[in-house]
Amino acid sequence: MNDLDFFHRPTSVAVVGASDDPEKIGGRPLRYMREFGYAGTVVPVNPKRESVQGMATVARLEDSPIVPDVALIAVPGQAAVEAVRVAAEMGVKGAVVMSSGFGETHTADGLRMQEELLAHARKTGMRVVGPNSQGLASFHSGAVLGFSTLFTEEPPADGPVGIISQSGALASVPYGILRRRGIGVRYAHGTGNDLDVSAAELAAAAAEDPDLRLLLLYLENVRDPESLVALGEASRRRGVPVVALVGGRSQSGSRAAASHTGALATERRVLDSFFERVGIWQVHSVKELVAASELYLQDWQPSGDGLAVVSNSGAVCVLAADAAEDAGLPLATLSDDTVTRLKAELPAFAATTNPVDVTAALLTDSGLFGRVLPILGQDPSVHACLLGIPVAGRGYDVERFARDAAGFAASGTPLVLAVPQPNVAKPFVDAGLPVFEEEASAIAALSQYLAHRHRMARAESLPRPAVGARPGQAVAGLNEAESLAALADLGVPVVAHELVSAPGDVAAAFERLGAHEVVVKGSTTEATHKSELGLVRLRCGSPHEAVAAADEIAASASSHGVQLDGFLVAPMVRGLHESLLGASLDPVFGPVMVLGAGGVHVEAVPDTQVLLAPCTLEEVHEALARLRMAPLLAGVRGNPASDVDAWAKAVVRASEALADPACPVAGFDANPLMLLEDGVVAVDAVVLQSVVEEPA
Amino acid sequence: MNDLDFFHRPTSVAVVGASDDPEKIGGRPLRYMREFGYAGTVVPVNPKRESVQGMATVARLEDSPIVPDVALIAVPGQAAVEAVRVAAEMGVKGAVVMSSGFGETHTADGLRMQEELLAHARKTGMRVVGPNSQGLASFHSGAVLGFSTLFTEEPPADGPVGIISQSGALASVPYGILRRRGIGVRYAHGTGNDLDVSAAELAAAAAEDPDLRLLLLYLENVRDPESLVALGEASRRRGVPVVALVGGRSQSGSRAAASHTGALATERRVLDSFFERVGIWQVHSVKELVAASELYLQDWQPSGDGLAVVSNSGAVCVLAADAAEDAGLPLATLSDDTVTRLKAELPAFAATTNPVDVTAALLTDSGLFGRVLPILGQDPSVHACLLGIPVAGRGYDVERFARDAAGFAASGTPLVLAVPQPNVAKPFVDAGLPVFEEEASAIAALSQYLAHRHRMARAESLPRPAVGARPGQAVAGLNEAESLAALADLGVPVVAHELVSAPGDVAAAFERLGAHEVVVKGSTTEATHKSELGLVRLRCGSPHEAVAAADEIAASASSHGVQLDGFLVAPMVRGLHESLLGASLDPVFGPVMVLGAGGVHVEAVPDTQVLLAPCTLEEVHEALARLRMAPLLAGVRGNPASDVDAWAKAVVRASEALADPACPVAGFDANPLMLLEDGVVAVDAVVLQSVVEEPA
Repeated sequence: MNDLDFFHRPTSVAVVGASDDPEKIGGRPLRYMREFGYAGTVVPVNPKRESVQGMATVARLEDSPIVPDVALIAVPGQAAVEAVRVAAEMGVKGAVVMSSGFGETHTADGLRMQEELLAHARKTGMRVVGPNSQGLASFHSGAVLGFSTLFTEEPPADGPVGIISQSGALASVPYGILRRRGIGVRYAHGTGNDLDVSAAELAAAAAEDPDLRLLLLYLENVRDPESLVALGEASRRRGVPVVALVGGRSQSGSRAAASHTGALATERRVLDSFFERVGIWQVHSVKELVAASELYLQDWQPSGDGLAVVSNSGAVCVLAADAAEDAGLPLATLSDDTVTRLKAELPAFAATTNPVDVTAALLTDSGLFGRVLPILGQDPSVHACLLGIPVAGRGYDVERFARDAAGFAASGTPLVLAVPQPNVAKPFVDAGLPVFEEEASAIAALSQYLAHRHRMARAESLPRPAVGARPGQAVAGLNEAESLAALADLGVPVVAHELVSAPGDVAAAFERLGAHEVVVKGSTTEATHKSELGLVRLRCGSPHEAVAAADEIAASASSHGVQLDGFLVAPMVRGLHESLLGASLDPVFGPVMVLGAGGVHVEAVPDTQVLLAPCTLEEVHEALARLRMAPLLAGVRGNPASDVDAWAKAVVRASEALADPACPVAGFDANPLMLLEDGVVAVDAVVLQSVVEEPA
Repeated sequence: MNDLDFFHRPTSVAVVGASDDPEKIGGRPLRYMREFGYAGTVVPVNPKRESVQGMATVARLEDSPIVPDVALIAVPGQAAVEAVRVAAEMGVKGAVVMSSGFGETHTADGLRMQEELLAHARKTGMRVVGPNSQGLASFHSGAVLGFSTLFTEEPPADGPVGIISQSGALASVPYGILRRRGIGVRYAHGTGNDLDVSAAELAAAAAEDPDLRLLLLYLENVRDPESLVALGEASRRRGVPVVALVGGRSQSGSRAAASHTGALATERRVLDSFFERVGIWQVHSVKELVAASELYLQDWQPSGDGLAVVSNSGAVCVLAADAAEDAGLPLATLSDDTVTRLKAELPAFAATTNPVDVTAALLTDSGLFGRVLPILGQDPSVHACLLGIPVAGRGYDVERFARDAAGFAASGTPLVLAVPQPNVAKPFVDAGLPVFEEEASAIAALSQYLAHRHRMARAESLPRPAVGARPGQAVAGLNEAESLAALADLGVPVVAHELVSAPGDVAAAFERLGAHEVVVKGSTTEATHKSELGLVRLRCGSPHEAVAAADEIAASASSHGVQLDGFLVAPMVRGLHESLLGASLDPVFGPVMVLGAGGVHVEAVPDTQVLLAPCTLEEVHEALARLRMAPLLAGVRGNPASDVDAWAKAVVRASEALADPACPVAGFDANPLMLLEDGVVAVDAVVLQSVVEEPA
């Protein structure tokens, strides 16, 4: 992945369209590189001036005395295409195309130019960022190959955070917020149309930087899921958490993104499942994108998520407990020993269970936090602390509180602060601690930090998702017997059944199946909602009844113009519950499993979970536990428990089969999959085949 | 309600325990009243000094040359009780007891002193705030009858916001946040134990202040729901929105509150329903408590919730659309005329549907926002706007943007801004506009503001909740026939039924009911889960079968030691769906209705809504629409629609009956209430009676 390092530390940069005006798009990079300490060679290209901003120019890129590592292109339209051609032919390693007017315009001209540009680069293997890119900014090398206004508004400082965004604005906004909070930013990239090099690919390269501690990502589409998988791998290997904001979650947001950069045509839950799989944390707003940054930059080693709350206000204790429940952080149950030790330190009326209310005694005993925090830290159930100081100021030894808090946090236990007064917060901020205006924000950030660490560790044991589009298309062409057979091939237990050709043959099938009651269905590849068409008869209790049912089905089929290829006879299975097991191919992320409540109400009252294939037994059990129907599976009100393990195993087998690129199945729907006391069985199935047209 | 005005504008104040040290609890009020312009008479009471802070003292309260309006009490324990006694006897109108060590300690002594204190006050009708109160601060009169540290940290300025909190810290924190945002605060009250005057009662008094525009409330318990109802009424009548944060939502938060001030023993959904009913907006954190303050202080007249988004960044358009969906704000669909007018103003590649992306053209055309916003404002589907400027600075005419935005907002259409850069935000803030760091926060605040206005308007048409505890207790003493009769009396349709005494009589009951199939149940007051005890037999298709069922039931009852008082025979009713209708008495908020999905899984997979009694048909229909099962009620996959209107009417009738204080029913549970194509019918009922012990 380090093969994109030339974008971050180029030894030389040519600027095509270099401007003498340091406020112009072609002028800003020159100024920025000068001001922010770029030490490599800069070759300004401008056919009309001998020098720009005091630097001698060359008239054409091909006149450059050296072959630059990177060509930064600020000329419009066809001239940009031409510059890419020249750069590629010269052997330039990479181009950053800031010019717009390409694919993002959705015009024929723009798309054509974009294709042409790409073709030139592909010829020699030159990599291209953009077009329509705000550019790449690397502040450790001073290689600011972009034009963001923000770098003059909020002066840069090299630091441990990388921001990689498909949108220029969404590179600049988090950059500005972090800089105002005093956090150094090494990379601030706005990649644009991601024609060749994608934001994810650049992020994966940045993750290899040994000084980087945190990566923030903004995406509106995913053209190469493989790079995101690689980013996840690099993130985990290097211990660099990645927080991602994907715009276009909502219908209208997705529409807006489509007109902007091209939206992601993936069900949101598939994306969620993907990020979980690769260890990337997903957020839903800019605020959330940057909220926990200070926590990620600490050297903590949390060993769990038990939270202890300490405050000099009872109300903050109450609100912090509420916020912890909202955020899914359990309040630690303190040991008797801890409570005894706390009692010895605190006034009689103080609360010494968790949350710990040190009361107004803090005003006269400035060492309280310094004694209480270590006692909590030594409790094995405490893995993180919130310290809330809603009111302090004159009369309080705030400097000492901050020293004590920093000393505690240095021991490796995460500590967040809720301190609304800026002057009280300052010594804590100066000590490098994460300070929030109030407890709910602090606890939300802490919860994200802990859960993200957990997610990254867990992703190590999860299979690589089978991303990527399969060739061919999903085709419905199987009748139910064929579908059941295909489903069985995937490892899903299916009901015993017989396919017979005439209504009269149903009687013998009944006898052979040896069931008390059977289901008779018209077999066809033409219809899906068979019940509504009268093609299904349940609970036939005798061969005679079954034959009569087949006759009725034949009549129904004929009246609806449905061609039958026979009659399917199967034992009537009564499950403890009806479940659903399905699969489909996501165009970006590959095979996706759906599991949940089954029956006729799956569309009206859906209760399903989504997992990428292949999935593990543990993942499936966790997904099943998230279903609303989950409490029923253990058996309630005298009913036996369902064989959830058999269900989970069927999901895993099918997911592994689907993950094989050679799998002939492009999707299926088993509904109901009957849950039994012992095992599961699909009694109805629709299987879609993956069909690739043979070249003629 | 204005009868508490003497706390806000006392003509004279005695300070019992007045201290010479302006940093002590008994010294701060003297200093604050002097510094913050209190013009009334102050009488410091101190037996040990002739003067404090340059003011002559009296030795004892009874030595005061005047009868003060308010006695502010800062002496501890029994001395505070004694001061209250003297004040009450002197004819003081109200006491503010800052002293702690009372009920909040949960000690016998503390509780006794508190009762004693209250008894003294009650004797003469003197009102008491506290004890354990941080005090009341009124900045229009300078009557700062309290000791909050924050008033020295963040200098006060009189203004349109009142903060009334049971916790001192939670009065100070929002005060500080608002003051730092430049918002004036008139009241900052920390009421403490609410022994007599409650936070809600003070808030209702504050709502009568003609200059007040917004009330923020923090509560941990509700001792007098009547005052909250009165607050809601005053809030709506005066147009002063009330935003409330109630601490102790979570289990651990509620435990923490119990040890702190006394938690609220009310199911959270009941509280939600109450606040909705009275028009108060509920939030879940301090951050949310203050988030929309700037919006409430505008003079807007929104007529709907259609949102238009304008930005110079496509990504902000995308993220704003996502945030709008999260917040439940619909994006307005612009008229063709609006789109045509926008096209005339914007570059060809700009997005002229909503969201409107004005693109980087803003840099060269500073009048864009000034032309685009009015076009949007004239579209009848646009009721509010977000303007997002993620990046600006040098080269942008930000002052003009702010003028144009302020001009638009002055026309009455709500406008919020998402502007991360402080220097770019400043002219907007200076123009009095609500500015947020990013779009999700701005849209969340806008959504709250609009929904709160809607809630306040709607509360006008809702019945007053029947708050208050009923005397007596809920007792289970009815058998099923009696329960069905009691339920029918409440207006809920019940199944036809016969109660017979011997198994042999069941046959005749079968015939009289004239049903194809009946249910036979053992009638008893002793058991609730009858099916598990074998006391219910469904689908008896003949008199013979029914008698046999009764025999089996009798045997089951006998083997479980359950006393039967007969056999209930009822037609077998098959509903389209099983629903649930229940009611209970909340100790604070009175009768509460529960409605939702019925059947045997109501505990394992609950799907219910809660409404305060009495409720309206409209409320019930809205609650039913929120059920997960709602999509089924319209009829799916060929099933007919259920008679939802009959269900709703049954809820309303029962709620009105329960709201009558003379109602003999203390609660009931009808499950299942069968939903039919035409009507509903309860086939199973447990009714609890309200029993008041007669005096002997």
